Amino acid sequence: MVESNRYYAVNATNFKFLAVNKKCVLLETAFQRYTNIIRSSAQGYTRAPATTTLGTIHIFKINLTQTCEDLPHLNMDESYYVRGDGVVRAPTIWGILRALETLSQLLVPLPNGLLLIRSVEVYDQPRFKYRGLMLDSARHFVSKRKILQLLDGMAFNKLNVLHWHITDDSAFPYNSSTFPELSAKGAYRPELTYSKAEVKEIVEYARVRGIRVVAEFDTPAHTASWGASHPEIMTKCAGEFQGQLGPLNPTQESTLNFLNKFFKEIKTIFPDKYLHLGGDEVASGCWESNASIQAYLKAHGMDNGDLTYLYLERLSANISAMGWKQMVWQEAMIENSLMEWPANTIAQIWFDYKKVAATLTKKGTDIILSDGWYLYVLETGADWEKFYAVEPTNFSGTAAQKAHVIGGEACLWSEWINENNVLPTTFPRVSAVAERLWSPKEQQNVEEARFRFEEHNCRMIWRGIEARPANGFGIC
Amino acid sequence: MVESNRYYAVNATNFKFLAVNKKCVLLETAFQRYTNIIRSSAQGYTRAPATTTLGTIHIFKINLTQTCEDLPHLNMDESYYVRGDGVVRAPTIWGILRALETLSQLLVPLPNGLLLIRSVEVYDQPRFKYRGLMLDSARHFVSKRKILQLLDGMAFNKLNVLHWHITDDSAFPYNSSTFPELSAKGAYRPELTYSKAEVKEIVEYARVRGIRVVAEFDTPAHTASWGASHPEIMTKCAGEFQGQLGPLNPTQESTLNFLNKFFKEIKTIFPDKYLHLGGDEVASGCWESNASIQAYLKAHGMDNGDLTYLYLERLSANISAMGWKQMVWQEAMIENSLMEWPANTIAQIWFDYKKVAATLTKKGTDIILSDGWYLYVLETGADWEKFYAVEPTNFSGTAAQKAHVIGGEACLWSEWINENNVLPTTFPRVSAVAERLWSPKEQQNVEEARFRFEEHNCRMIWRGIEARPANGFGIC
Repeated sequence: MVESNRYYAVNATNFKFLAVNKKCVLLETAFQRYTNIIRSSAQGYTRAPATTTLGTIHIFKINLTQTCEDLPHLNMDESYYVRGDGVVRAPTIWGILRALETLSQLLVPLPNGLLLIRSVEVYDQPRFKYRGLMLDSARHFVSKRKILQLLDGMAFNKLNVLHWHITDDSAFPYNSSTFPELSAKGAYRPELTYSKAEVKEIVEYARVRGIRVVAEFDTPAHTASWGASHPEIMTKCAGEFQGQLGPLNPTQESTLNFLNKFFKEIKTIFPDKYLHLGGDEVASGCWESNASIQAYLKAHGMDNGDLTYLYLERLSANISAMGWKQMVWQEAMIENSLMEWPANTIAQIWFDYKKVAATLTKKGTDIILSDGWYLYVLETGADWEKFYAVEPTNFSGTAAQKAHVIGGEACLWSEWINENNVLPTTFPRVSAVAERLWSPKEQQNVEEARFRFEEHNCRMIWRGIEARPANGFGIC
Repeated sequence: MVESNRYYAVNATNFKFLAVNKKCVLLETAFQRYTNIIRSSAQGYTRAPATTTLGTIHIFKINLTQTCEDLPHLNMDESYYVRGDGVVRAPTIWGILRALETLSQLLVPLPNGLLLIRSVEVYDQPRFKYRGLMLDSARHFVSKRKILQLLDGMAFNKLNVLHWHITDDSAFPYNSSTFPELSAKGAYRPELTYSKAEVKEIVEYARVRGIRVVAEFDTPAHTASWGASHPEIMTKCAGEFQGQLGPLNPTQESTLNFLNKFFKEIKTIFPDKYLHLGGDEVASGCWESNASIQAYLKAHGMDNGDLTYLYLERLSANISAMGWKQMVWQEAMIENSLMEWPANTIAQIWFDYKKVAATLTKKGTDIILSDGWYLYVLETGADWEKFYAVEPTNFSGTAAQKAHVIGGEACLWSEWINENNVLPTTFPRVSAVAERLWSPKEQQNVEEARFRFEEHNCRMIWRGIEARPANGFGIC
């Protein structure tokens, strides 16, 4: 950033964006979005100094140098350049989207309807390419309306992945057309579900903001809700678990065939290159109690330790065959020594970070960090400092290992989160995670961050995000 | 409660309330309110068992035996009787309001639009007469819309006092007609204030629900926002506090005259018999540094320890002369040994409960408990057990002393609470406080309470209260 203490003015009702190079629909819709955001911000809380200006900007010149891509992706280029006299440049549409967000944040309102912008220059790009927010819509249902607000807030924080943990033991809220009984019997209520059209709307709303949507249908554990309509793909427990249904049964072809049909449908509505397979917290007690599973193991010269492998190896192969790359929770990698995951499979680490990160990056696995970024852990609710202090490369390893840290993800597990508190639980605390993932490692000063988050929280609230206070008392 | 396993049915679209004895407007508006609530609840989540019924209730017979009072008050009788075949009886309108709430909670919906009610009998009255919720609208502004929702939720929990801590150091959000400059200069923003009309609407909304509104304009400390427009009533600090304004200046007649004019206005819009004077956290450093205050003390043979007394003694006398009874934070009683408070002044205890409760009740002072009931202290947000475990009579003292415990109050200090999280911070956790204050001391079983709160939270959410989850995963 090249600093400046000189200003340009912008008349909030008389400015426009002009595409001076490549054009596309994504760019046009972004112009509309940020025109509205900037117009509205002119009515916001007054913070700009009274000052003379170098002139008035009537046109923001947007120089997109490469043809637009359709879909945001893991390796998209998000770099951009913004100059305070109204020049924006980026190689990709994704960089332009980040630049427009920065531009809108640089504009500060005056009481007279004008906005001021400093005559700065910003050369910017993210430190990490994966900057995610995970939403669990199973422990409690979260409506499409709230998910769209989450996406708005993600864009305002330059987060670029919504990892959607759609199903879990407690509920199956996705309306499948192939297996409508999954949500008919597995959702809390018929109305507490997502139709295909709603999912598509969410994915599209994210896409135009440069946000990927990575779906997770967690298996083989966390699947009790599947069993409500399809007990035949589950494991019938015996012994101390008699009468219960356990994880998906990995010894039946029919289980894998069912999943194949299901994920073929999923592939048609989640266009991202990645699917999250889950694979966490598999308790093997039920598998071990089931006589037919034990007979299968014996017949194939395998033992109980091979069951997760047996399951994941075939699921992963099927998912690969459909053209998907994969993400998994750490257990799927750590606890299956036989398993050879496809190259570029990403592991998500949620506990024992230092140890697991060291182990996996040594093997050349790309990882993302969620350990320490669980948003449901609250103190005052203004407790963002603990999130800000987390550093994804803080483990023992070589530079080559550290290069396998591709980002991180804040997690909204919804045991204690519902429709009514999902937004204030997320905002503004996720801003601390977003800054850690975007900005240089050296940016660590908490007191400076406090002022930024206070200002940014006001901005988010003004834009309609239902954020709680960032710090102590105040206007926002 | 006389239990029963037999049921009556109610057709949600074909029932009415009938006043079979006394009538008044408060009763009629309550009939309308609960007709809507019950109709809406028929669409709610299905919980009722399939069963035969003893018949259908078309008319709820409401037997109010005494003439209606206009205003809820500290000693109002809230006792009532409800019988599952549709008979409601209470001496006062306040008891009828509580009875209608109970009746509405007894009705459980069937899938077919009918509601079931058990053929029980409920004889009920509160354990404590003061069951409050304190809202701080100064650290962050909370809109009228959200305050009305708070009042709805309070009624659903049979809370009967909204203690409104309107002003504090950080903001003066009340639009005074006598001194409009107080909010013009002391509020965060012109629009972040309460007009007289809005305050009246809030008070009326509370009144018809049997909820008192006790105003607090905290003095002599916590008054920096007054100083924005009226620095002359503040203390000019010297020495280490040079350049700052300290608490209200207790040695100037003009300070007390100013307050007299101000509180005369307040008296016209807050009809409750009680005013909360505040009186907490008075730091005397600034007073001690001020030369004219020191000269005054010397001239009157007083010392620094007399200053709070000097202030409160005259303020209290003026407030009494206006016809108000008084509440104060504990410091105002504990730290002023000379002060003789008017009989029936209520002390609110917020720290050192066991010690302070023992001391004050020994002197015959009525007390309410807030220590342990600060809602901004969060863990998961489903952490209501700690509130449920608080027992207001848990201090060393005689039965006569314990009789001076007249209730308690959950506090919404708003350092970390704003418009966007005030409701989920309050609900459902305040239900634990409300039950502690209403039900017999012996009702302590946490696991039973867990089920009640889960059900009640669903009910509150269905009625439009933005409550967070009560426990873990689930439908609500």
